[in-house]
Amino acid sequence: MAQTADKLQTESQLKTLNDALGSGGFLQIRRMLNGLPPADAAHLIESTPHKIRSVLWQLIDIENEGDILQHLNDEVQSQFLRQMDAEEVATITEGLEADDIADILQQLPDRVIREVLDSMDHQDRIRVEHVLSYDEDSAGGLMNTDTITVRPNITLDVALRYLRRHEQLPEMTDSLLVVNRNDQYIGVLSLRKLLVSDPSVTVREIMDTEVEPIPARMSSREVATLFARHDWVSAPVVDENSLLLGRITIDDVVDVIREESDHSLMSMAGLDEDEDTFAAVLTTAPRRAVWLGINLLTAFIASAVINLFEGTIEKVVALAVLMPIVASMGGVAGTQTLTVVIRGMALGHISRDNSRWLINREMAVGAINGLVWAVIVAAATTLWFDDPLMGGIIGAAIIINLLTAALAGAVLPLAMKSLNIDPALAGGVVLTTVTDVIGFLSFLGLASYFYG
Amino acid sequence: MAQTADKLQTESQLKTLNDALGSGGFLQIRRMLNGLPPADAAHLIESTPHKIRSVLWQLIDIENEGDILQHLNDEVQSQFLRQMDAEEVATITEGLEADDIADILQQLPDRVIREVLDSMDHQDRIRVEHVLSYDEDSAGGLMNTDTITVRPNITLDVALRYLRRHEQLPEMTDSLLVVNRNDQYIGVLSLRKLLVSDPSVTVREIMDTEVEPIPARMSSREVATLFARHDWVSAPVVDENSLLLGRITIDDVVDVIREESDHSLMSMAGLDEDEDTFAAVLTTAPRRAVWLGINLLTAFIASAVINLFEGTIEKVVALAVLMPIVASMGGVAGTQTLTVVIRGMALGHISRDNSRWLINREMAVGAINGLVWAVIVAAATTLWFDDPLMGGIIGAAIIINLLTAALAGAVLPLAMKSLNIDPALAGGVVLTTVTDVIGFLSFLGLASYFYG
Repeated sequence: MAQTADKLQTESQLKTLNDALGSGGFLQIRRMLNGLPPADAAHLIESTPHKIRSVLWQLIDIENEGDILQHLNDEVQSQFLRQMDAEEVATITEGLEADDIADILQQLPDRVIREVLDSMDHQDRIRVEHVLSYDEDSAGGLMNTDTITVRPNITLDVALRYLRRHEQLPEMTDSLLVVNRNDQYIGVLSLRKLLVSDPSVTVREIMDTEVEPIPARMSSREVATLFARHDWVSAPVVDENSLLLGRITIDDVVDVIREESDHSLMSMAGLDEDEDTFAAVLTTAPRRAVWLGINLLTAFIASAVINLFEGTIEKVVALAVLMPIVASMGGVAGTQTLTVVIRGMALGHISRDNSRWLINREMAVGAINGLVWAVIVAAATTLWFDDPLMGGIIGAAIIINLLTAALAGAVLPLAMKSLNIDPALAGGVVLTTVTDVIGFLSFLGLASYFYG
Repeated sequence: MAQTADKLQTESQLKTLNDALGSGGFLQIRRMLNGLPPADAAHLIESTPHKIRSVLWQLIDIENEGDILQHLNDEVQSQFLRQMDAEEVATITEGLEADDIADILQQLPDRVIREVLDSMDHQDRIRVEHVLSYDEDSAGGLMNTDTITVRPNITLDVALRYLRRHEQLPEMTDSLLVVNRNDQYIGVLSLRKLLVSDPSVTVREIMDTEVEPIPARMSSREVATLFARHDWVSAPVVDENSLLLGRITIDDVVDVIREESDHSLMSMAGLDEDEDTFAAVLTTAPRRAVWLGINLLTAFIASAVINLFEGTIEKVVALAVLMPIVASMGGVAGTQTLTVVIRGMALGHISRDNSRWLINREMAVGAINGLVWAVIVAAATTLWFDDPLMGGIIGAAIIINLLTAALAGAVLPLAMKSLNIDPALAGGVVLTTVTDVIGFLSFLGLASYFYG
């Protein structure tokens, strides 16, 4: 049972790899990489620093390159593709599924895509061009063209004999697609049903017409929702005229689900979900720098607010000591609300009809927690600085800031979504700016009034 | 094409629901809820505030309750289960798959689970007890027992006739499992292969023995990795003696993948991935409060650090104005590193052999971005306060803090993982404590040396 501990296996493979690299054992690495299932080899390549990757890629036999390439993430793909000419790309992608070829080609400049397509054989070119004509993030971009179709008026017996004429059925084939003479989709006949039914009945009698086909322009995100809700293994894709274009399979949908989920996590730190864990320093640094720059601007805004109260701080230095507490509590409370709302939006739970309830709930939670922690912080402050007025001021500021945090954490992502800005991307930095500014403003403002 | 805009559909259903609730149109709601596919009805219930949910639940016909219940998230499930007695639970879960029943039962106290099992019919009880005997987050807990098995020595013709004797095949059946006379797993015969092969050959001749079965004790996370890598629709589960126990299907794996991905996002804000978007105020507030409390402790540590330099701040108030900038830049840079590392660990990319490279890369990125932003902040500060010394001090502090942030962001999750603490959970708060403390310490420390 080699897979008992899959991650340990990767670890030991990585160790073997490093040892072999250290001792220059390229023959051993070549054997290992070409012997692994393509998905495992791809995972191993993704798990190595970018410089070693180029070495590993050289060691892969040309007949395995396409299979491994399709399993790599976008960034690593384009790292390798940059070193190939159009003909090489055409050669190694031969035999891959149309949607996988399309995914790979999308990493290339338009001019090169054209060249690769020209080097492909006619039938493959048509299939790939078809997929390429749709947006990468739409049903059309996800689909494969390898459908097995039957007519409704044949008997199952005929269908079974037709199937037997195939050398093999495409991967993930769980059903035959039923089309009329104009190739328009009319229903689905699952293999499960085909196998238990009387061979003398016709396809029409047992086919399932309940399964709505997926329009080619539907976003991949909505496709993923449909698959997850209806437990599909594959589903037909049609154009505006119900013409059957292809089918989407669950393996590609799983990738969409994974990317969607990673998206919120990565975006909140200003990162791209495709971010390569082992990218080079000079690739990584500028990407991260942009986000730091945005943060710097907002940090200066907060500083400007503090600067307004310079005189008060000079008199009461304890304010400088305590003010980060107010800002930090607001930031954490706001991030919690923001995260719940962003996750809820990603799951499709939040709409205009329930968002008001949600905002109210968050405000109520903010009020309760604001009150609880205000009392505790006020007590701690009074003890620490022996100053009940200071305790009262910080308590009030915390209540104000936690209410603000709840409101901003709930309203910001909703507002951004309606402006078509990615809420996860903009939410984090904007939110903490709000909680910093309101935190400093309320605390120092109250203090300057009472100590002024 | 009712599904063209799935999310819009949910929105309009929610609107219909709200309107009907407003006007007391319960009959309309009852018709709507019971007419929807169970997964859609569950989604609608999850998208409503907790009080309305109880009303909606009352309106669901008893024969639909089980189907809808299995699609609800854990929190909502237990909200409804709390109102039922053991017999009701046994009744409504009749006919569900063993793993789904087990999932539902796991929301109940042990005593009630026993009662429900006692109310079930014998065969169901055996199946469910089997699944319940494994950890919820293991392959055994994910599996179903509805396998279709064949012996290796029969011909395909016999196998086909055997299948035809079934009324229907279990959902997601894409293969028959081949077992020996002791019910030990020996291979897989996919329906795709069965349908294209000569009916006179035996199962043994064409079965696939390459597919390693999944050990029942494997963690569900590893199961998900295997499914994603090998593009499986279903896979056999065995015990230590290769005895076939059941099979895992991709629909359950998709749920695992979604939860795993949500886990990092939610944990970094101190939230549970099962968190119900529409939980009640009094459920939500205490949960959030804990995290705020932990944050408060760390905020006081940062304040204590500032307090050390009270005297210096009193002399140079600009320090109080500028110090949040140093802390905030460190926090953002550290969070970026932390997020990349946590995501990389979740994807299984990071092991002992490449973590050193990763730490070095992060330090290099921290050094470059530290330098770049140090120069910019130093220049801005010099202009703002007309004080080049202050500019130099804040620049140096930023370099120190960004290097610290990179180191902490990379090392913390790795260290926590090796201590078996969830890195996402502890990472966020611990990290910002480090960057706050080092930020204040370096900036105020340098300042007290030069201005002191």
